[in-house]
Parts: sequence; C-alpha cells; structure tokens
Amino acid sequence: MNTRNSIGVDIGGTNLRAALVTSDGQILKKEKISSSGDVLSKLIDTIEILYSSDVTGIGLAIPGIVDRKKGVMSVSPNIPSIAGVKIASILEERFKIPIEFGNDASCAALGEGVCGAGAGLDTFVMLTLGTGIGGGVVYNGLLLETATELGHITIERQGVKCSCGNYGCLEAYAGAGSIINRAIKQGISRHRDISTITPEDIYRYAKDGDSVSIEILKDAGRYLGIGMANLINIFSPEAVIIGGGIAGAWDIMVKEAINEASKRSFKELFEGIIIVPAALGDDAGLIGASHLVKGKK
Amino acid sequence: MNTRNSIGVDIGGTNLRAALVTSDGQILKKEKISSSGDVLSKLIDTIEILYSSDVTGIGLAIPGIVDRKKGVMSVSPNIPSIAGVKIASILEERFKIPIEFGNDASCAALGEGVCGAGAGLDTFVMLTLGTGIGGGVVYNGLLLETATELGHITIERQGVKCSCGNYGCLEAYAGAGSIINRAIKQGISRHRDISTITPEDIYRYAKDGDSVSIEILKDAGRYLGIGMANLINIFSPEAVIIGGGIAGAWDIMVKEAINEASKRSFKELFEGIIIVPAALGDDAGLIGASHLVKGKK
Repeated sequence: MNTRNSIGVDIGGTNLRAALVTSDGQILKKEKISSSGDVLSKLIDTIEILYSSDVTGIGLAIPGIVDRKKGVMSVSPNIPSIAGVKIASILEERFKIPIEFGNDASCAALGEGVCGAGAGLDTFVMLTLGTGIGGGVVYNGLLLETATELGHITIERQGVKCSCGNYGCLEAYAGAGSIINRAIKQGISRHRDISTITPEDIYRYAKDGDSVSIEILKDAGRYLGIGMANLINIFSPEAVIIGGGIAGAWDIMVKEAINEASKRSFKELFEGIIIVPAALGDDAGLIGASHLVKGKK
Repeated sequence: MNTRNSIGVDIGGTNLRAALVTSDGQILKKEKISSSGDVLSKLIDTIEILYSSDVTGIGLAIPGIVDRKKGVMSVSPNIPSIAGVKIASILEERFKIPIEFGNDASCAALGEGVCGAGAGLDTFVMLTLGTGIGGGVVYNGLLLETATELGHITIERQGVKCSCGNYGCLEAYAGAGSIINRAIKQGISRHRDISTITPEDIYRYAKDGDSVSIEILKDAGRYLGIGMANLINIFSPEAVIIGGGIAGAWDIMVKEAINEASKRSFKELFEGIIIVPAALGDDAGLIGASHLVKGKK
C-alpha cells in the first residue's frame, strides 16, 4: 500500500477536533466533539472513528509548552486531566503506532508549510494572534522543535504584566486580550456596555472610522511589528505568516505592524520577505499535528 | 586517507587569523597576519601556508549578515574590499575545494559546540559580548543557518538608538560600547580622563567596590538577562553560553543577567538550563569556521 495517512488531533479548544490527513495535507475526514467531561475517552473514541490499519501515526496539538526532545513540559490549565505523557502511552498501547505532540501554534505553522501559506517555502515564521500569541517556525522545511513561545518575547522592559508572569511580552500588547483590555480602559463610545466588547466589535468600529478603535489596533500593530522585526533578525525567514482571529484586522493592525517591522529589522533581511495571512484557518493545526509523526513538510 | 582536516579563517578582526583544524576540532596549525592592506592576497597567502591536499574545505567567519541559503548579505564596513561572493569564487578557483561563509558569532557558537562549552549538547544559544553582541544557535547538533542577529532584538520599545539604526536593541544596552558610553556619561571618579575608559577598567573598579561601576555592569546584566530570557523562550536550549570580552565580568554582570532571565523566562524552560562561559576564546570562531563545510558538529 502506498497510502501514508495520519491522524491529527487538536485538543486545545472547547471542542476536540481530529482529522484523517494524507501525506500531502489533504483532509479526508474530520471529527469534532465537545471536550467537556472525560476528554481522554472522547479522544480515544474520536481516533477510533478515523483509525484504520493504513494510519501511520497520531499527532496531538496541545496548548502548552512542548519541547519535542524534552517532552510535554506544560499543558494549558484548561485540560489538566490529560497530561502529555499519559495520553501518549495510552494511545500507543491502544493503537500501536507512533504518537507525537506539538504545541498548537507550532502545529499550525507546520500545517501552513505542508499545504498553506508556507507551501514551497523553506524557512518561515508564523504568528497566531488569538487571545494570546502563539508562534511556530519552519526551518529548512522542518518544524523547529523548540518551545518557540514567540508571544513571550519581552519587547518593553518595564511593560505591562503578561499572563505568563513576565512583564512587557509581545502577547501583553498585541494579543486579543490586551486589545480588549485597552478598549475597556479607554472606552469606545458607540459600544454601550464596554465590558462585553469583542475584538470583532473593535475591528468593525475601526473600519467605520472610530478613532479610538483605530488607534488601539494601530498601537497593537506597532508592538506586533517589533515582535516581527525581532523574529526577522533572528530567523531571516522567507515569510512571516499571520494567522488567528485578529489577523482579520489586516488592513489596520497588520499593515501598521509591517511598517514598524520594516523600520526595525535589518534592511537586508526585510527586503524580499513576504508577510502574508495564513491560508488554512483551523485546519492548519490538524494538518500540522498529523504531520508531526513525519516531522517534516 | 582518513584525515578530514579543514581550514577556518576569521577575517573580521584587526588581524586575519586562520587555522588548520581536524574534524574533531583540534587545531593543528595557526596563522595570524595583520589584515591591513591587500586583505585578499594576504588571505590567499595565509591559506597557502595551511593548505595541503587532505584539506576538505575552507570556512570563513565574517562580521556581517550571512544567510547560508541567501549568501553573504552584508559585510562589516571595516572590510569593504572583500565582498563575500568575490572571495568565494576566487578561493574556489584557486583551491578547488568547497568554500563556506558564516557570521563570526555563529562560527564561535559552532566551534564551542564542536569541542568547547557546548560539546555534547544538542541545542544551545551562544551570545558573544564584544563591542556589539553577536549570537549563534546550535540546534539539534547543527548550526542554525539563519541570521541569528541576537544582539538586535528590541527589548525596550522606545529605547536608545542602536548602531543598526533600530531603537532599544539588546546590544544598545549590554554591549561593551553601551557600557563605556554609560561610564562616560555618568563619570567614574577614580578614572580621571573618562574618555579613555575601557570595559576592563570598569570591571576592575567594580571589583574594587566602586558603586557607579557596579551599577553600570548590573544594569547591563539585567538587559542581557532580558535577551537571554527571550532566547530561552524561543529556543528552549540546554545551555546559554556567554563568550567575548565582557564575559570576564561574570560575577557581577552575568550573575545579574541570570537572575533576570530566571524571572522572565518560562519556569519549565529555565529549569535545568546551564548558563556557562565559553571555553575556547578566539579559537572558537576558527574551529567553527573550519566546520562550516561539514555544516555540523
């Protein structure tokens, strides 16, 4: 048989999502189950649906710190019941195929490399802008298997406190959480109950011309640009790929980020780089997770 | 024949230095020539002295941006006469063996990995603290062949201007140049003509208990620690290796850096890491350069 399908699972969201994926990144079948309750048995049930004897491995995308050599080093508090090692040994026992873990943002980067915005590129950085900021790096066609906690680079020495405990992280300025916090603090007159505001509301107001909303997004963009410049100076990538919810505010926030990055990174490195939106949405993480077992695009 | 010697050249300093190096990093012969005048013919003469038919390649460490895929992207202004591509083609023509380039700080990292402080480690970050701050990363036993301009990570959004044109770079706070600038600005009473002060003077005064000198070094150390924390969160290395002149001020500056990094990096990633001085001094760059052709430790 020539098929080399594998299963990718994303266990981080409110739903447990899994897919059967071909070696070139095509999703053959997708499953989604609420991840409340007994996550482990739900996980096994979901994999059972997708599993067949031609599946070569299972990759799990988790929200936490994964060092592929050192193992799973921490898992987001919202899924405490399924520590990395425990899942791996249970699944390996059950399915007798290799099990791998990856950080969810790293999996998204790998997925974009397989068949998304990073297809055909050797080296790129991907930033996933959600409530927090996740990151992944594909280097010479392979996922960089280190922590790549790219949202937790200090860009402002005495900056605001970040969820990680540090001060001045990129995430604390350009993550959706910080954008909402700024909106709540400053107030946006057209949004009556400011405590209910979402990032989408802020983009909408900004697009409608609300100056406070525009400035909040632009300022977040300038911080994002500092993070991008740092990563460009480190990784000299061919591309920076921006994914996640906030990336929707491309024409305001990301445009500002690109401008800032162009001023701060080495000219030789910024020239010729492309900065593009992610192409695969939520599928990126599933495709990337399914490719962890191969470890490459 | 089983010998696999190669030649490493460091063309960045006031002297052109070259060495014949074995595959396990042993230096068999070393040459040093002033790099004033016709650098290219001096370079060829030096290599001629070390060359024999069992030499498998020549690696050149240069102070500039090298992307191994994209080539030499910039060379420090002090050696404008020998652009990367030109040297490579001339040497290849002459010696008929592979020629490779590496940034000097990356070569130092690779050299430390071959037989220095990084020997036996898979993944580590090295920072070279000189007038500027250079960096190199060894990842899974191989040199990370990207720009790794680790001194040019913005750690203070609206910080002081850096030699690279950006504001708030690590180098602008923790490089020897910035340490001297601070000493000149603040004055150190026991040094009469402050304009002549060197980093070594500042360490000596600090060790003698001079409070201004101590605070200058500690403050530089705190910035260095921010840079270290950023790199730990990105690369989850087994070690951070500190080399270069300023590393001599270990007990004051680097100690403070380690303390700062411990507070700012992810606990899971900081635990178990070792932060150690480089072991090979100036030889690291030569050994690393000689190993560029092999591309690995």
